[in-house]
Amino acid sequence: MAHTRAVDIRPLRWLDPPAGPAVVLLDQTRLPAEEEYLTCRDVTTLIDAIRRLVVRGAPMLGVAAAYGVALAAYRGDDVPAAAGLLGRARPTAVNLSWGAERALAAWSGAVAAEERRGEGAADAATRAADAATRAAAAALAQAREIEAQDAAASAAIAGHGLRLIGERSRILTHCNTGALVSAGEGTAFAIILAAHRAGRLARLWVDETRPLLQGARLTAYEAARAGIPHAVLTDSAAASLMAAGEVDLVITGADRIAADGSVANKVGTYGLAVLARHHGVPFVVAAPVSTIDFTAAGAGAIQVEQRPGQEVTSFAGNAVAPPESAAYNPAFDVTGAALVTALVTEHGIAQPVHAGTLHALGAMRKPREGARSDVSVER
Amino acid sequence: MAHTRAVDIRPLRWLDPPAGPAVVLLDQTRLPAEEEYLTCRDVTTLIDAIRRLVVRGAPMLGVAAAYGVALAAYRGDDVPAAAGLLGRARPTAVNLSWGAERALAAWSGAVAAEERRGEGAADAATRAADAATRAAAAALAQAREIEAQDAAASAAIAGHGLRLIGERSRILTHCNTGALVSAGEGTAFAIILAAHRAGRLARLWVDETRPLLQGARLTAYEAARAGIPHAVLTDSAAASLMAAGEVDLVITGADRIAADGSVANKVGTYGLAVLARHHGVPFVVAAPVSTIDFTAAGAGAIQVEQRPGQEVTSFAGNAVAPPESAAYNPAFDVTGAALVTALVTEHGIAQPVHAGTLHALGAMRKPREGARSDVSVER
Repeated sequence: MAHTRAVDIRPLRWLDPPAGPAVVLLDQTRLPAEEEYLTCRDVTTLIDAIRRLVVRGAPMLGVAAAYGVALAAYRGDDVPAAAGLLGRARPTAVNLSWGAERALAAWSGAVAAEERRGEGAADAATRAADAATRAAAAALAQAREIEAQDAAASAAIAGHGLRLIGERSRILTHCNTGALVSAGEGTAFAIILAAHRAGRLARLWVDETRPLLQGARLTAYEAARAGIPHAVLTDSAAASLMAAGEVDLVITGADRIAADGSVANKVGTYGLAVLARHHGVPFVVAAPVSTIDFTAAGAGAIQVEQRPGQEVTSFAGNAVAPPESAAYNPAFDVTGAALVTALVTEHGIAQPVHAGTLHALGAMRKPREGARSDVSVER
Repeated sequence: MAHTRAVDIRPLRWLDPPAGPAVVLLDQTRLPAEEEYLTCRDVTTLIDAIRRLVVRGAPMLGVAAAYGVALAAYRGDDVPAAAGLLGRARPTAVNLSWGAERALAAWSGAVAAEERRGEGAADAATRAADAATRAAAAALAQAREIEAQDAAASAAIAGHGLRLIGERSRILTHCNTGALVSAGEGTAFAIILAAHRAGRLARLWVDETRPLLQGARLTAYEAARAGIPHAVLTDSAAASLMAAGEVDLVITGADRIAADGSVANKVGTYGLAVLARHHGVPFVVAAPVSTIDFTAAGAGAIQVEQRPGQEVTSFAGNAVAPPESAAYNPAFDVTGAALVTALVTEHGIAQPVHAGTLHALGAMRKPREGARSDVSVER
């Protein structure tokens, strides 16, 4: 088994003043052909980048939203309004609002503390400017903490997930779940990297992931950088691979998980889960606990983003369907918990996946390093 | 329900001398952006066109191969060699060898008859030239007969298939099965057109059909021309449509059907069949009886064409995956008969699909017009 090379990708970094304040994004719409960076100096530009998928993937959207709140605070914008806009920039990934709300809470707490501290001070204008800077710094510190937690979560997910990987596994994955969507090595892809390092990965099958080809463009790019043996396939070829006995395990990420274990993820995930069940192949989802939305009871409570039809009917600006043709282009689909063999989080593995095992995961906070953290192994 | 407009597409026509002999093909690789024609004046050009999918689809490949044999005969080529090359131009569609062999048999029979007739005649050179022309004409007549039979088969398939379509049906189809693959209105698409004319088609869902997008490019083109309400979707979005209860029926064509009812068709068909079963949606295959290969016992006897990886890893000449990435690109997959609700042919409907019902279809020859032609309605 070949050595696993470092992937070394930074999808987002914060730029301090005087060069900033700004959020610098690796433009994922241009990969793998070009490695270009987009500098977002205001929240409007950042939200547009989120909508255009310059930055994407559930964990990284949480990080991006938190930095966006810090950006608004440093700029002197209306911070609660900016946090609201960032949290709603796209409707399905719960991490956006989660990250925005945490950074907003840090900022609000700092503002309140500054107000208490500032009472009776001399120079009102200087005092207000200093207080605003300290509140912005609190938001930034929270964004940095989310980023660090995400990197730690990624490593923990990889460690837990590796327990599910047998010798010489042939793993199929969908969409992109690696360093491009995370401050660490990702979610599903972090497990794949761990399996490769452990000499247990015989081959990675990469679904191209239409319409925006995050599999072909991004996962294959990360797999190639890591030195992982892999092959790209059309999404519809996965079924015949499974029928031929060429897939031992399917692993994907998640954009939102309802309290009952329903998994919203990139369109195509649900079909893979049905096919995996039909062929007796385990279907595993990997995501940080922040992806679980305990306020969403089930699939019906998850809004699935409908994206522009041109993503399907044209390619790189060229029409591939007649102008009269309509398109159906949901960005996500929802897989019922019964089709999910296991959910791997930084706090352990839920197996089987249901409201009870998810609730137990959500109740855990920073488990001790090395502690046995399986939530459930009941069958 | 809107009026069904005439689609009016001719994927292939024969050009007589002196402009010919030639086979003129509508270049399906350029649709829908451009309607260009390729004139094949020799068998090598025609075989290259078949391999590049300038002409494609099981029934039309049978027609093209037969005309290719006539072309070889008119040119004075080695006709049996040309028939062999045409029959093997692509490995999965049995219609290629079926069409080539029928035209070759007509030519061989004419050659033998000419030899008997020519014994003792005066001018050997003139006699030989006339005999060759008459043998070529016999091959051409056979090609024209195959074409006419295909048009009649298409109409009969539409008539039989319509019996399976309920009121206000929402039908999902994969790849392209209309006038571009047939001398008539096609196979699955002929049924869809019949359903639209009968006011029973509420909506057509068009799988884009990666990697070559025959659904988005060709089926949507035919649907738009016919005035059928339709929407294009990525192949992987079909699962969520079924889960939402938006699909009443799936209909596809077939490239080869084994004697046990295993259906080889465009990659993605098998996954659709599994999904249809999971959601309780009928899965129907439409094909002329010539698509049934009674010499192939089952799925194992069907060779699945593997096509170049660049069809997946690049798009319109632009790379979409890193150069290091391998690709898995089967053109077809094979669906077991147990997943096929019904097979619609010009001789009637096999339902359920198994060796017995297929054998009965194969034994039928030109059933009387209007005769009850269900092969089996056993359950």
